[in-house]
Amino acid sequence: MQHMRFVFSYDGTRYHGWQRQPNAKTVQEVLENTLSRISNLRITLVSSGRTDAGVHARVQVAHAGLPEKTAANPRLMQALNSMLPPDIRVLDAQKAAPEFHALRDVEQKMYLYFISTGEVQPPALASYSWHLRLPLDWQAMDKATQYLRGTHDFKAFAAADHSAKTTRRTLFEARWVDSSAPAFGCDARLRVFRVVGSGFLKQMVRSLVGTLVWIGSGKAKPEHVRDLLQSRERTEVGPTAPPHGLWLWDILYK
Amino acid sequence: MQHMRFVFSYDGTRYHGWQRQPNAKTVQEVLENTLSRISNLRITLVSSGRTDAGVHARVQVAHAGLPEKTAANPRLMQALNSMLPPDIRVLDAQKAAPEFHALRDVEQKMYLYFISTGEVQPPALASYSWHLRLPLDWQAMDKATQYLRGTHDFKAFAAADHSAKTTRRTLFEARWVDSSAPAFGCDARLRVFRVVGSGFLKQMVRSLVGTLVWIGSGKAKPEHVRDLLQSRERTEVGPTAPPHGLWLWDILYK
Repeated sequence: MQHMRFVFSYDGTRYHGWQRQPNAKTVQEVLENTLSRISNLRITLVSSGRTDAGVHARVQVAHAGLPEKTAANPRLMQALNSMLPPDIRVLDAQKAAPEFHALRDVEQKMYLYFISTGEVQPPALASYSWHLRLPLDWQAMDKATQYLRGTHDFKAFAAADHSAKTTRRTLFEARWVDSSAPAFGCDARLRVFRVVGSGFLKQMVRSLVGTLVWIGSGKAKPEHVRDLLQSRERTEVGPTAPPHGLWLWDILYK
Repeated sequence: MQHMRFVFSYDGTRYHGWQRQPNAKTVQEVLENTLSRISNLRITLVSSGRTDAGVHARVQVAHAGLPEKTAANPRLMQALNSMLPPDIRVLDAQKAAPEFHALRDVEQKMYLYFISTGEVQPPALASYSWHLRLPLDWQAMDKATQYLRGTHDFKAFAAADHSAKTTRRTLFEARWVDSSAPAFGCDARLRVFRVVGSGFLKQMVRSLVGTLVWIGSGKAKPEHVRDLLQSRERTEVGPTAPPHGLWLWDILYK
């Protein structure tokens, strides 16, 4: 068997997240089925982590062992893309060092969360950004966001059923930026939450965005974020932001 | 009743085109049902024209009569958007002059057809552009496109079941342009067919694009377009381009 490193990209709209599960179509299942079909062997993928239902990945990395013959196919990527639905793509398929592990070797991950703030959200953005018409206090949100940078216990921002051993994480970057207008005549104004961290707890980015928007709409003070990092009280955070604005954007490996 | 002029925008992916039909969900039906619900009266829309299943509209214009009370609602647009699915939006809803007719008063229409030419098409573009990996002779396509400008009989490029009285149309503009990369990390190269005309026959833009791509892939000479405008032979055109790359982009009224 040949140890392989894959880079995938997917539109999560039609899928119940990354992870294989019974009675629901997932990205992992579609990819594993396609890899199994081309390999004539049951293939299992190990990814950099899960994404929730409706969340997108500009980039997702995974490893798997493939039969030598399949791995040696110089047009493996093209063959896989011709078999996959157009909302899941293989961006790269390379032989990997035997010790490469797509989950354990992650050094940093970047997520982007898109919020469109215009009066009307263009239809082509509906699956890819959260539309918020209410006026938001971006200064308060920027101030609240500053408290997130650094190493903290993010327990308050994790889903109740998270399975992480520790809830301490380091955020190297957390800020709001403007995004230029996308194609297809969308002149929507987009605000983007850009966050880079050593790792993320289950639903952490969506909980952070939900809480920041909650602060931006005046429901709490910016300092509430600082308090949450101290209190670790999940009951005190804002409503979780919807999945469709979230993109797994980049993954940095050791 | 108050005569109204609406501007809509829609992502055609989930719909069987604009026009209401039995046993299939269409954009007209969704809009008419929503207008009827808010008006407590059966409302019928007359649009600038139909769009095929899977075709998008950055802008679609339609007229309808609404009860005075509904028309007088200063938040009519917001109310409609809160009832509609996010892939159909109302961009404008205004009282119109009694003589305004959304179909008969059209002076010019602009369509764009998006082709992505990179090795892999980003998932978020899959519903909005035609992915063509084969190398195309853009010079030949540009040359062929020049023959289209002006007033011609476009019968060869109309669907067999078109219902137009005359197949003569005037194209004021027809050219290929580069499009900048859209958002969401898509660095796909896009080539866009931009066409402005006095009117378009059924499936005409898709037939034009299909024939130009056919020429670009070496299946016919650029002069073949000139011959088709003379021969009017539908059997001699290239395969019709798929609907999902096509956008009704703008409508100019008298």
